[in-house]
Amino acid sequence: MPTPVDELARRSKVASRQLAGASTDDKDAGLLAAADLLLERAPDVLAANTADLEDAAAGGMAEGPLDRLRLTDARLTGMAEGLRKVAGLQDPVGEVLDSTERPNGLRIERVRVPLGVVAIIYENRPNVTSDAAGLCLKSGNAAILRGSGTALRSNLAIAGVLREALEKVGLPEDGVIVVDDVAHEAATRLMQLTELVDCLIPRGGPDLIQSIRENATVPVVIDGDGNCHVYVDAAADLDEAEAIVLNAKTQRTSVCNAAESLVVHEGIADVFVPRVCAALAERGVELLGDAAARARCSEMGEATDADFGQEFLDMKLTVAVAADLGAAIDHINRFGTGHTEAILTEDADAARRFSEEIDAAVVVVNASTRFTDGEEFGLGAEIGISTQKLHARGPMGLRELTTYKYLVWGDGQIRE
Amino acid sequence: MPTPVDELARRSKVASRQLAGASTDDKDAGLLAAADLLLERAPDVLAANTADLEDAAAGGMAEGPLDRLRLTDARLTGMAEGLRKVAGLQDPVGEVLDSTERPNGLRIERVRVPLGVVAIIYENRPNVTSDAAGLCLKSGNAAILRGSGTALRSNLAIAGVLREALEKVGLPEDGVIVVDDVAHEAATRLMQLTELVDCLIPRGGPDLIQSIRENATVPVVIDGDGNCHVYVDAAADLDEAEAIVLNAKTQRTSVCNAAESLVVHEGIADVFVPRVCAALAERGVELLGDAAARARCSEMGEATDADFGQEFLDMKLTVAVAADLGAAIDHINRFGTGHTEAILTEDADAARRFSEEIDAAVVVVNASTRFTDGEEFGLGAEIGISTQKLHARGPMGLRELTTYKYLVWGDGQIRE
Repeated sequence: MPTPVDELARRSKVASRQLAGASTDDKDAGLLAAADLLLERAPDVLAANTADLEDAAAGGMAEGPLDRLRLTDARLTGMAEGLRKVAGLQDPVGEVLDSTERPNGLRIERVRVPLGVVAIIYENRPNVTSDAAGLCLKSGNAAILRGSGTALRSNLAIAGVLREALEKVGLPEDGVIVVDDVAHEAATRLMQLTELVDCLIPRGGPDLIQSIRENATVPVVIDGDGNCHVYVDAAADLDEAEAIVLNAKTQRTSVCNAAESLVVHEGIADVFVPRVCAALAERGVELLGDAAARARCSEMGEATDADFGQEFLDMKLTVAVAADLGAAIDHINRFGTGHTEAILTEDADAARRFSEEIDAAVVVVNASTRFTDGEEFGLGAEIGISTQKLHARGPMGLRELTTYKYLVWGDGQIRE
Repeated sequence: MPTPVDELARRSKVASRQLAGASTDDKDAGLLAAADLLLERAPDVLAANTADLEDAAAGGMAEGPLDRLRLTDARLTGMAEGLRKVAGLQDPVGEVLDSTERPNGLRIERVRVPLGVVAIIYENRPNVTSDAAGLCLKSGNAAILRGSGTALRSNLAIAGVLREALEKVGLPEDGVIVVDDVAHEAATRLMQLTELVDCLIPRGGPDLIQSIRENATVPVVIDGDGNCHVYVDAAADLDEAEAIVLNAKTQRTSVCNAAESLVVHEGIADVFVPRVCAALAERGVELLGDAAARARCSEMGEATDADFGQEFLDMKLTVAVAADLGAAIDHINRFGTGHTEAILTEDADAARRFSEEIDAAVVVVNASTRFTDGEEFGLGAEIGISTQKLHARGPMGLRELTTYKYLVWGDGQIRE
């Protein structure tokens, strides 16, 4: 019998109050103990994972998802190293963001504090259990984790190890809780526990995001689609542009920061479109374009608005030709998802205008879109990439798992 | 025929892109022009308001709401002064929050930018039209405003003046739009325009907040209830404590930072409860308490959990006696709404523990809860007080109407 998600979230809330005041040393000790214990208990975790894998395979799961579900010694070592790395990052909690003294003598401080209970809903990757819990712990939050049903035994085994480590160092084991009710209703319920869940971070595809939009009443940070564009300006270095377009599209296609669309300034379209399309086609990229792009590349299919709006996550790219920089910006703001948009240009004014007028979490000038990532940005680790504007935008690290609290210090002030 | 809210929001979106790049000088010129024009056009605005007032009175509106709806020369002057004051505040847009150079040569900047389209849903106070629009304009946002139907002519008249001022200085008049569809469905629709509305700030009572929680799919900052507590510790200065409790409860009862509940440490309850209750009763405050409080004050009714959970906004106060500091913290975290909680104590350790363990936007030590306010905190002005933890917490000024954007400057970097 699974435990009701309300009860689990109540336990998370209690743990979150204890974790909020935990010292950096204690939290780091917990992370290091968890890393050690994860390797020590590897046989148990792998056995649980094997059971998940066998059921999944028997149920007809394809090789791609099966591979994401699979744990190995190497993957467990990676998870342990991830926990150790988080222990080495700076603790964001307790930082005084600002402090002012008012004319009436009140001292007003703004201090960084944990969010409280952070819920993560994710898919078929058991490593997220450890990665997300580690980041939540270091930032003083309790993590309540709801992975996919196919990974339940793996997730419970990993969380069991983390909980044991927390207890070992005197921290509340309920700092990490896996929701063991795999029914759809339990996930929906988790999205609606407004008194208990301080922040929900969904990590999944469009169906999950849609369900969150329809059902969630708790505060949410959306880790949404990345329909990323590369705009090649009239003043681009075309050799560099070709290399960047190829990298952004083909270096890894299944990730949210891969390019899904190419926009080319009309002034260089006669030269650049045939050239880059040949290079892309050679790598096996399927091309869909507007009329102006197709006129310059015979191998290109017709792109509909739906194509321009889609995150393919595949060897597929839309191509549009823009009359000028303004038209390119309009196209990208229309079809983009607010993730990452790049301009390639040697014209500083064009770069400046693009960076100002494009409405996205990350605007890249003369580099690949593939750099939008917590590690690449120097955050040390990331819990996701926000495509919304409230709270956090772009790669989210430890800082983005905190909020602040005003502390007002008086000596008897009353309001007249 | 009212304009469909979708169409209005699309116009807001277009305007928001122009306002995002507007200079501080232009925005300030718009605010000052609006202040002048508001006084110049006072007869028109007052005529529109008179029409609203007459219909409202004929419809049986009570004097309290009628007074909130009423505009006068003095109130228009106050609104104009408010706009001038916002013009004098620092522009948050463009601030570089941090800037790092990565080993691969990428320079990564985090720059403060406007949210985009800010929707405000509010009640029967036409001055909010001008106040909210002014703050949105200064922070580079387009404001789409949905007030109550009873104030529609007043709101349209005020917005008309603001729009005229924007056009006068070369800014898009659609930077300020009043939704003229007063149907309930139009408000609900505004809550769901995820492609167009970047942030929704509701300013209203529990019914509005409930409707937001049920219907909103756009990002929201909740300006929620203030069930504020004053905790009088065993180590409190009781003269100071009495003055603060009286101030927090009675200085103004209709505001969210007024105290709604008093918690007294058992160690001083025999002395303090009778004393403070006599003083409160003398001012006409109705008292409801738990058994331990009632045992020390014969005038006190019985408080249910529902009473302890309620924001009275009236001359009414619940009283609880707590066995110790921990019990007081538990009580406040249970019944509080995350707004403002005060401790009165001369014991530094008790103050520190309370400030750490209380989960609220503002924790006050030895002062009245009534100071939680943008002006009192030195923000210059406020658009509301957030009781959620994401994005903004506590009083929200210009900074809280912004987000950030990552700018990545490269010279051809691709990801290996």
